[in-house]
Amino acid sequence: MTNLFGEFLGTMVLMIFGCGVVANCVLSKSKAEGSGWIVITAGWGFAVMLGVFTANAAGAPQADLNPAVTLAKTFVGVYTVSEAIATMGAELLGGIAGAAITWLAFLPHWEVTEDKGTKLAVFCTAPAIRNTGANLLCEIIATSMLVLMIFAIFSKPTGAIPPGVGPYLVGILVWGLGLSLGGPTGYALNPARDLGPRIAHAILPIAGKGRSDWGYAWIPVAGPMAGAIVAYFIARAGGFL
Amino acid sequence: MTNLFGEFLGTMVLMIFGCGVVANCVLSKSKAEGSGWIVITAGWGFAVMLGVFTANAAGAPQADLNPAVTLAKTFVGVYTVSEAIATMGAELLGGIAGAAITWLAFLPHWEVTEDKGTKLAVFCTAPAIRNTGANLLCEIIATSMLVLMIFAIFSKPTGAIPPGVGPYLVGILVWGLGLSLGGPTGYALNPARDLGPRIAHAILPIAGKGRSDWGYAWIPVAGPMAGAIVAYFIARAGGFL
Amino acid sequence: MTNLFGEFLGTMVLMIFGCGVVANCVLSKSKAEGSGWIVITAGWGFAVMLGVFTANAAGAPQADLNPAVTLAKTFVGVYTVSEAIATMGAELLGGIAGAAITWLAFLPHWEVTEDKGTKLAVFCTAPAIRNTGANLLCEIIATSMLVLMIFAIFSKPTGAIPPGVGPYLVGILVWGLGLSLGGPTGYALNPARDLGPRIAHAILPIAGKGRSDWGYAWIPVAGPMAGAIVAYFIARAGGFL
Amino acid sequence: MTNLFGEFLGTMVLMIFGCGVVANCVLSKSKAEGSGWIVITAGWGFAVMLGVFTANAAGAPQADLNPAVTLAKTFVGVYTVSEAIATMGAELLGGIAGAAITWLAFLPHWEVTEDKGTKLAVFCTAPAIRNTGANLLCEIIATSMLVLMIFAIFSKPTGAIPPGVGPYLVGILVWGLGLSLGGPTGYALNPARDLGPRIAHAILPIAGKGRSDWGYAWIPVAGPMAGAIVAYFIARAGGFL
Repeated sequence: MTNLFGEFLGTMVLMIFGCGVVANCVLSKSKAEGSGWIVITAGWGFAVMLGVFTANAAGAPQADLNPAVTLAKTFVGVYTVSEAIATMGAELLGGIAGAAITWLAFLPHWEVTEDKGTKLAVFCTAPAIRNTGANLLCEIIATSMLVLMIFAIFSKPTGAIPPGVGPYLVGILVWGLGLSLGGPTGYALNPARDLGPRIAHAILPIAGKGRSDWGYAWIPVAGPMAGAIVAYFIARAGGFL
Repeated sequence: MTNLFGEFLGTMVLMIFGCGVVANCVLSKSKAEGSGWIVITAGWGFAVMLGVFTANAAGAPQADLNPAVTLAKTFVGVYTVSEAIATMGAELLGGIAGAAITWLAFLPHWEVTEDKGTKLAVFCTAPAIRNTGANLLCEIIATSMLVLMIFAIFSKPTGAIPPGVGPYLVGILVWGLGLSLGGPTGYALNPARDLGPRIAHAILPIAGKGRSDWGYAWIPVAGPMAGAIVAYFIARAGGFL
Repeated sequence: MTNLFGEFLGTMVLMIFGCGVVANCVLSKSKAEGSGWIVITAGWGFAVMLGVFTANAAGAPQADLNPAVTLAKTFVGVYTVSEAIATMGAELLGGIAGAAITWLAFLPHWEVTEDKGTKLAVFCTAPAIRNTGANLLCEIIATSMLVLMIFAIFSKPTGAIPPGVGPYLVGILVWGLGLSLGGPTGYALNPARDLGPRIAHAILPIAGKGRSDWGYAWIPVAGPMAGAIVAYFIARAGGFL
Repeated sequence: MTNLFGEFLGTMVLMIFGCGVVANCVLSKSKAEGSGWIVITAGWGFAVMLGVFTANAAGAPQADLNPAVTLAKTFVGVYTVSEAIATMGAELLGGIAGAAITWLAFLPHWEVTEDKGTKLAVFCTAPAIRNTGANLLCEIIATSMLVLMIFAIFSKPTGAIPPGVGPYLVGILVWGLGLSLGGPTGYALNPARDLGPRIAHAILPIAGKGRSDWGYAWIPVAGPMAGAIVAYFIARAGGFL
């Protein structure tokens, strides 16, 4: 139960900072409006780092914050299937809660932002070019890199990373993923990060909101899940595990 | 007494760098003029890191540099009430002194900067959209994240962070806060950071200065203090403490 | 054999992220389009960091990812000549594979990008001002700095860098190289980074691609190799080794 | 003698990267042209980090790379007066050598850059607003922060910073100094960084160069030296030493 609470709280913090950095960059009259990709990607990287610290502090030593990571670790044997499902549920709830708090933090900015797509972008991803196969493929490749790199950073040959440095390196990894592979789909990489806030967007009384683009919603769930499985097999073949 | 001097000196350094990065980005003819949010937020992050090193070196092991952090730690039992009040006073004085030194470092730039609001922005925060409730709420949320993350980073499960790495992680935390939650109110997060320089603005003979916007001054004091208490209760509920 | 596989996989990861950050910044309709030098250089820095973690995890403790680094270490005595040649081959193959995966990740963006030179730039370097002698000299100087700094960071006087921190410092080094010396030639610094993706560009059915600029291809091979030898002699003269 | 060679080589590397990042951002047709303050300041920060690793590797454990730092440490008792003078000389020579190598790395870009002041800016600093007293004061304040922060980071209360992390933190410090206090004078902070390259500018056959602005040259020497002495007294008063 502590573990589930930790995953919930960690994912909530991840999404406060993650939705936050997008809100900061795209909502009208925000002081960071239009500050661009370096801000977006650094913000998401540090969001993950802070989520990991939070989850650890609240009693979740794995600090996955991401059903795709949880899935890969289930293949590894870290979780039983029922533990994995519960963990994923906690992560999803954390994603919903975090997005709701970001909505509150930027409360007067929703009304002054005209474009409905911009408001949705604070919550969930949308592809640069809508193309089911290509969007799915991009999420698979990017998430396989996320999961493979987590396995690499915490592999035996790296050695015992000092306390505090591991979460930082995971943050840098996520910063790098955004810098390098984030452009085609907005790098969901994480079903809880996309589906959770999309649910929040659908539920919350956001001023002048539009539709939640449910037609696309399965791709940032299925792509990351598939990518995690790909990563598991590469990591096993590569002797990381 | 060493502790008070350390908090004073650390907060002074924090504000030299913190007011400095804003001055650098907004004052006319500065070489960094208009360089934007990534510069502002990285600058504030490193400012806090350097303030922490300074406070530690001068004999303040807590290195709060922030009455809101001091308040949360008073709830934890780190300070008695009278120690807390003295610490907060030292921090406030450090904020005034640091802002005054930044004013000197940018001496010829005040005269050539026409807008009075720009000059005030070097010293203290102003909301993007003026709305008492929403501004207060944003400061509460952002500061609760600041304090909760400090508790998370230095929680038992993280382990013994190596010397020098702790202050760096706090700097990255503050960088992340600015990236993600800084847009609506300019992220005061710290009464000494806002009230101290505002007092300096009122006192100093700044060329062509305007009013110090005292009507808003209570929000970046009350919001952070309330946020710190929120963080304390979340941290206790989450088992961080 | 493990070592060769590790160098292959690490260089593949390096190039997925490295070609990726360029694709992200230059291909039409990418969300990061036009985000500039800070994104390009941070992306390449983290790409190298992630490649090193990958190579280490897969059983390549040297994690050169770069024939120029391998050459310098052959002078030092880390490799026999035949080991060095095999290692360089693995790196080159990794470069080809990584570039192909980046092509897939950005699949719908090739068609919408008109300029053929822009598409080639995702794969390999081109000089800002075409001048054989000067371009060669720039690659020699920049690569000598890369190799010399690797020797410096991992020299005896630095001491035993904690696990995880070494790859990060190498990433920061590469970030710094791009920031400071990347402008004249696009900083290949690594034959596998330039020749591998150039081969991929020639082979892959990239929508609307142009020529692969083979006339320039020898410079980002010969320059880095020469620079590595220069670095070896400076490092020996300086007592780093 | 090893120490002098290390200071020479480290300062040379500092200036290859330091002059390099300015050249990269300001010379015509460089791929990084116009990329702004975040690039300039990160580049200088990493330049110092790499210079420190180099100096250490080459046998200079202090790795000052800066006569102002050497002066402060002479007050502390690290050097005798004659050792200090020799160290400063080695640093100055390193500054000249590094600037000359940067000139070579950007060889075809000097001719295509029209503005003579832009070319000079690659080598040495110039104030945003020319005002002897204010420029001197800014260099004193900024350098006192540099030296005080070095004393703070490596003070006893910080503890034994792990190998490799110390030079990184010094790099972050210099990044922060540029972000926060670099705008009024271009933050020389270091006589070897300004006077060395200015001498190189005067000597080298740079295509279409102008005058070397010797009238300003004493300020980035005298200001940093005075700032170092100020820092020494604050550090002593604050119990850092």
